[in-house]
Amino acid sequence: MVLMSSSFGSSIRFQLFGQSHSRAIGAVIDGLPAGEFVDMTELASFMSRRAPGQTAYSTSRKEADTVQIVSGINRSGQTCGAPLALLIENSDTRSSDYIEIAQKPRPGHADITAWSKWLGEQDVFGGGHFSGRLTAPLMAAGGICKQILNRRGIVIGAHIYSLAGIEDTRIDTVTPDAGTVMAASQKDFPVLDDIAGNLMKQTIISAHESGDSVGGIVECLALNMPWGVGSPMFGSLESSLAQVLFGIPAVKGVEFGSGFEASRMRGSVHNDPLYLRDNRVAFASNNAGGILGGITNGMPVVVRVAFKPTPTIGLPQQTIDLTTQSETVLSAKGRHDPTVVVRAVPVVEAAVAAVLADALKEAGFLQQQLQPESHDQSIIDAGKIFELFKK
Amino acid sequence: MVLMSSSFGSSIRFQLFGQSHSRAIGAVIDGLPAGEFVDMTELASFMSRRAPGQTAYSTSRKEADTVQIVSGINRSGQTCGAPLALLIENSDTRSSDYIEIAQKPRPGHADITAWSKWLGEQDVFGGGHFSGRLTAPLMAAGGICKQILNRRGIVIGAHIYSLAGIEDTRIDTVTPDAGTVMAASQKDFPVLDDIAGNLMKQTIISAHESGDSVGGIVECLALNMPWGVGSPMFGSLESSLAQVLFGIPAVKGVEFGSGFEASRMRGSVHNDPLYLRDNRVAFASNNAGGILGGITNGMPVVVRVAFKPTPTIGLPQQTIDLTTQSETVLSAKGRHDPTVVVRAVPVVEAAVAAVLADALKEAGFLQQQLQPESHDQSIIDAGKIFELFKK
Amino acid sequence: MVLMSSSFGSSIRFQLFGQSHSRAIGAVIDGLPAGEFVDMTELASFMSRRAPGQTAYSTSRKEADTVQIVSGINRSGQTCGAPLALLIENSDTRSSDYIEIAQKPRPGHADITAWSKWLGEQDVFGGGHFSGRLTAPLMAAGGICKQILNRRGIVIGAHIYSLAGIEDTRIDTVTPDAGTVMAASQKDFPVLDDIAGNLMKQTIISAHESGDSVGGIVECLALNMPWGVGSPMFGSLESSLAQVLFGIPAVKGVEFGSGFEASRMRGSVHNDPLYLRDNRVAFASNNAGGILGGITNGMPVVVRVAFKPTPTIGLPQQTIDLTTQSETVLSAKGRHDPTVVVRAVPVVEAAVAAVLADALKEAGFLQQQLQPESHDQSIIDAGKIFELFKK
Amino acid sequence: MVLMSSSFGSSIRFQLFGQSHSRAIGAVIDGLPAGEFVDMTELASFMSRRAPGQTAYSTSRKEADTVQIVSGINRSGQTCGAPLALLIENSDTRSSDYIEIAQKPRPGHADITAWSKWLGEQDVFGGGHFSGRLTAPLMAAGGICKQILNRRGIVIGAHIYSLAGIEDTRIDTVTPDAGTVMAASQKDFPVLDDIAGNLMKQTIISAHESGDSVGGIVECLALNMPWGVGSPMFGSLESSLAQVLFGIPAVKGVEFGSGFEASRMRGSVHNDPLYLRDNRVAFASNNAGGILGGITNGMPVVVRVAFKPTPTIGLPQQTIDLTTQSETVLSAKGRHDPTVVVRAVPVVEAAVAAVLADALKEAGFLQQQLQPESHDQSIIDAGKIFELFKK
Repeated sequence: MVLMSSSFGSSIRFQLFGQSHSRAIGAVIDGLPAGEFVDMTELASFMSRRAPGQTAYSTSRKEADTVQIVSGINRSGQTCGAPLALLIENSDTRSSDYIEIAQKPRPGHADITAWSKWLGEQDVFGGGHFSGRLTAPLMAAGGICKQILNRRGIVIGAHIYSLAGIEDTRIDTVTPDAGTVMAASQKDFPVLDDIAGNLMKQTIISAHESGDSVGGIVECLALNMPWGVGSPMFGSLESSLAQVLFGIPAVKGVEFGSGFEASRMRGSVHNDPLYLRDNRVAFASNNAGGILGGITNGMPVVVRVAFKPTPTIGLPQQTIDLTTQSETVLSAKGRHDPTVVVRAVPVVEAAVAAVLADALKEAGFLQQQLQPESHDQSIIDAGKIFELFKK
Repeated sequence: MVLMSSSFGSSIRFQLFGQSHSRAIGAVIDGLPAGEFVDMTELASFMSRRAPGQTAYSTSRKEADTVQIVSGINRSGQTCGAPLALLIENSDTRSSDYIEIAQKPRPGHADITAWSKWLGEQDVFGGGHFSGRLTAPLMAAGGICKQILNRRGIVIGAHIYSLAGIEDTRIDTVTPDAGTVMAASQKDFPVLDDIAGNLMKQTIISAHESGDSVGGIVECLALNMPWGVGSPMFGSLESSLAQVLFGIPAVKGVEFGSGFEASRMRGSVHNDPLYLRDNRVAFASNNAGGILGGITNGMPVVVRVAFKPTPTIGLPQQTIDLTTQSETVLSAKGRHDPTVVVRAVPVVEAAVAAVLADALKEAGFLQQQLQPESHDQSIIDAGKIFELFKK
Repeated sequence: MVLMSSSFGSSIRFQLFGQSHSRAIGAVIDGLPAGEFVDMTELASFMSRRAPGQTAYSTSRKEADTVQIVSGINRSGQTCGAPLALLIENSDTRSSDYIEIAQKPRPGHADITAWSKWLGEQDVFGGGHFSGRLTAPLMAAGGICKQILNRRGIVIGAHIYSLAGIEDTRIDTVTPDAGTVMAASQKDFPVLDDIAGNLMKQTIISAHESGDSVGGIVECLALNMPWGVGSPMFGSLESSLAQVLFGIPAVKGVEFGSGFEASRMRGSVHNDPLYLRDNRVAFASNNAGGILGGITNGMPVVVRVAFKPTPTIGLPQQTIDLTTQSETVLSAKGRHDPTVVVRAVPVVEAAVAAVLADALKEAGFLQQQLQPESHDQSIIDAGKIFELFKK
Repeated sequence: MVLMSSSFGSSIRFQLFGQSHSRAIGAVIDGLPAGEFVDMTELASFMSRRAPGQTAYSTSRKEADTVQIVSGINRSGQTCGAPLALLIENSDTRSSDYIEIAQKPRPGHADITAWSKWLGEQDVFGGGHFSGRLTAPLMAAGGICKQILNRRGIVIGAHIYSLAGIEDTRIDTVTPDAGTVMAASQKDFPVLDDIAGNLMKQTIISAHESGDSVGGIVECLALNMPWGVGSPMFGSLESSLAQVLFGIPAVKGVEFGSGFEASRMRGSVHNDPLYLRDNRVAFASNNAGGILGGITNGMPVVVRVAFKPTPTIGLPQQTIDLTTQSETVLSAKGRHDPTVVVRAVPVVEAAVAAVLADALKEAGFLQQQLQPESHDQSIIDAGKIFELFKK
């Protein structure tokens, strides 16, 4: 039994594929609403936020990461109802770097567990299907969803909440300013407080220089989500988000709203009071993180994701040699980030966008302009089609 | 809500994508057992069995239908556990042929129902995602599964059971000869009885010359299937096979074993008697078609699939003009088969192979050589890995 | 690997459970629209259409088949959004009848394949989970869906299309009269032509008297289905319907519209011409059976289901004795129908209703009165809730 | 669209149902391996660990929580392959307590989001389907899985990691002692350090006396898990566990191994070094929490789950009155726990057991004794069946 599960979603289904050094990586998205324009320029701009090879803080592997859409759009560049398939070619693959790790599993990596699952048939180069490179098609898929959500006023932004223990400014999640959130998320170094940001950068460089790496926490907000999205129990929005977020390499923890801190709080402090604002239901605080009983409550959805330090480090590490069946020491040669946290910021946004698009569609919020329920119950009105046809 | 469902399978998941005139069509197969060699020459040979442009009996559209595997295999050409993605490029697309049908839905086609579902955003060219061209990636996916089953002694072959009412010789499904089944299925015109075959050919040509088309029935056998594959009720092997077979364009009916004829039979005739052959359980007849209670019974699996005549015909047909909202007459110009039945034979084999591979894996029959249950319960024996590693 | 699949559906999920002689049988339905009244009197009346023990044409086993709803409804008797669980108790279980079949698998039954899958752990009494008795919870689940569809004008009715080769009158599926369809389906012996019906009855009685059984074909129509329901390829409405219909015990074939007959037709005859009726799109014939490209086309959905003769017969049959490992002869003692076709009529209706409800919900046609899309994008209007609250 | 998702699992599927005050609550488990004895005494003992009404630390609502299995077992009390359905009756339901909350949504509860999803049709009594009472059928389902895993040497135990900030002793997760883990988990107050436990108890009582509530963290270990269980990406064991754990009411965060603390660590410290112990692969530390790349690595699986303080408190809280559309104050009357953490300990164990059983089956580790792959490829050996039959 070797079931793979590189897919998620129910109303919209996302299937990822590819290995670090395969000919290409990509995704198929099945169930996107039809008639949604895919802005390739905006998508390229979003992709560039995680592109490797750009700064001192990330791997020197260079990949253009150009997204090619091979199916699923019509001649107007809009989704056409059929599954959307996208490809990203792998070009700069130095497989020679990885010959050693076929024999010496890297600590903190899936090398040895991939062995145990596929008994030696797995693709070891670059970490194969377990590589952080697989976050590129997740970015592409999530980037398309982000555009669809943006058109409906839903804004998703993330920032580095903390890095190696250094904390960014807290975002007010009760009445956040969408502009502030977006501005922070799109910075080269996505923090609100640039002074904290500079400290983080120095820590990354210093870790890198000593052949080491650091971890951190990414916080993501989704603003203007409508009420009523999600389901109880195992179909809760927290469940769906956590399933996908734990699929991002290096994630060790996920929390919503008050999160682990809730474990220290009293109910009288934790419960978010309800009140009326302009005759509408609102909450005076947001410990819930925008989700109650698995379902959105009109407040910003707030999720935090803990990343471990990049496992590949320059320092020598104790491991085993599978060919000689003896203990040995490994000093990694592959090109890697001293931290994944910076590039993970847009990846978390993409994951959140993809999950929310799925949940929104399920809840009936991603309808086409001509509503299905306006169809006559028995036959189509040719006049209505005609009007559409003229578009 | 525009949920697409161009996917099937549970232990092995098949996701198809593409439109008739999109850049490419393809499939992602998630969950194939690792370590399975993909023989690209054999796959090309299988693909050529449905390739268009070869005979007088099929469309003059020419497509090389070269399968490119972009991920999911390791450097030895074997499956590596990661999702296998394959692409087939679309080259010979004469979209100008289809401008008219954007206004005038073709009778017997999905043009008008695609309208009703995607409200004008669908890709109309060449039938878009509804095109018979989508059977090419199904062939590729099923062809890979066929190789995997062949290695385990499971043989799948199909033939034209009848065409326009002309019937081929009946195959003995109680003790069929695998060689006979395979030989018939791989003919250019896949029938057992070439005299009947010649009659069918003449009927096809005659229908074509009069601007018309014909339908037929394909019969497919799977030999040497082990006992115990499938599930009760809605997970029955019949259910799984029918779900996928009805996904092939132009299919109007599916039956197993005695099929619709069973409705005229008495129980005393229909029930397959059990007896012992070499101290093993066997059946004296095969009205069950190899499946009892949804689960294989060691007899050949027998399924028949009814195809309607190709809907695109040269004769003028009554339809409506969506732009003028009036009735009109359409004479199709696109290149099409006078019958889909000939090319459908390997497509049915591919569909059956894919479904059986999924069911076999679920039932524990597609294990890798080193069985997972031989793993130590707590830690891996490095020596065992070492042995694998030397392979 | 012993995966069970006694479930189906995606937007609405149906999970059946129970064995012929377990304490109870039942179903869980997850995803029903909220606010739907469950009319228990109407449900009991529908259940009585398949209830055993009523006529000479069916088994003498008597079961009240009272449906108990244990969760999923609110204090007003309406669905409340939570999964609806229903139970039917098994009372009249003569397990002693079945001791013999634990040793001697009955021809035409799943006894021997259940052995091969569960290796002797299966529940053999009354056929266990493979028993036709499991159609009772399918009836209950489908009966609830039928009520929901009826409220939206969708009418589902079935009749005996043929029995042992004796044919009922053909229903006009182009412009059927809902009243005629419903009247036929609700008769004790559901045919349109009572003379043909009498012939069928005599054939059943005569088969019964000779210790034998007969098969037949059930035809089911769904009228007033809206356009645009279903999906392309493996999510086609034919695929979904066939998956569930082949899950009904004794089904050997499923066809839509022209079905197997299409294999003998020419395209010029088979294609249904489009025309305008009151400025709306209509079809002049219905060979498509209401489905084109997997999606409804506003015409009646027409499906036919072939049932084999009841496998349990009084006549002696050849089988094997598992305890002595020798060939033997079995004369069934359990109480069984001389044909399943009569009682299968409402079962087919129930299966069709359940599948259509799922597909309709997926297509956005089972909305609650207050549409989700009318929600404010960020906060709930307390006034709107208030109005609902007063209901 | 009101999709419910009170289900999880792929190889083994768990479907929960029920509301706090419905006639019964329960679960259907589809896909359990056949032949597994269900020890009802042991199950009752496990159920009693979360039973309400036992101590000062929990609600005074009294429920026997007797599990009734209505299908899925054979006459020997073993699973028979068919779906196992279980029921727990609701008896002590004081619905009058909840009339007020139909008008005044409780802060911290799903009352108001249930409104937004089901528009007033939801079952409000006792929190309906969102009630913590739904953890009872999860306990029953997980308890059965726990028995199955125990037979294969896999031990699952949990304890209170911290409560209101008071911490229990750390468990050594590198080489834990199964006995210690089990002993702690089965205490009335499940901590390792009883002095810390006493402090926690006093805090609970003190919070209760002031009409307030407290939160905490539960840590769960699974010992002796084999290598190779789980999948990459979104099918990772972390993903599957998190999906289900976030389905437990009041959970705000989930972390594995080093968890959020990893965000502060350096790679050289975080990576778990590999070494050979008795010529087998082992790890010198367990920051991974037993999972690398989504797949088990032979080390204990370690997960921590953060619970918020019980939302229902005696102190007055600000909310809105839906009938008068004005702000109001609510003082809860229902019977509730001053903390959910104590009773959540076995619930977390149950959830982990259910998810691991599903993943183990998928990975081929829950085979029946007579392996399917030992079947002859074409026919059953009656002798083998005979041997089974004698059992």
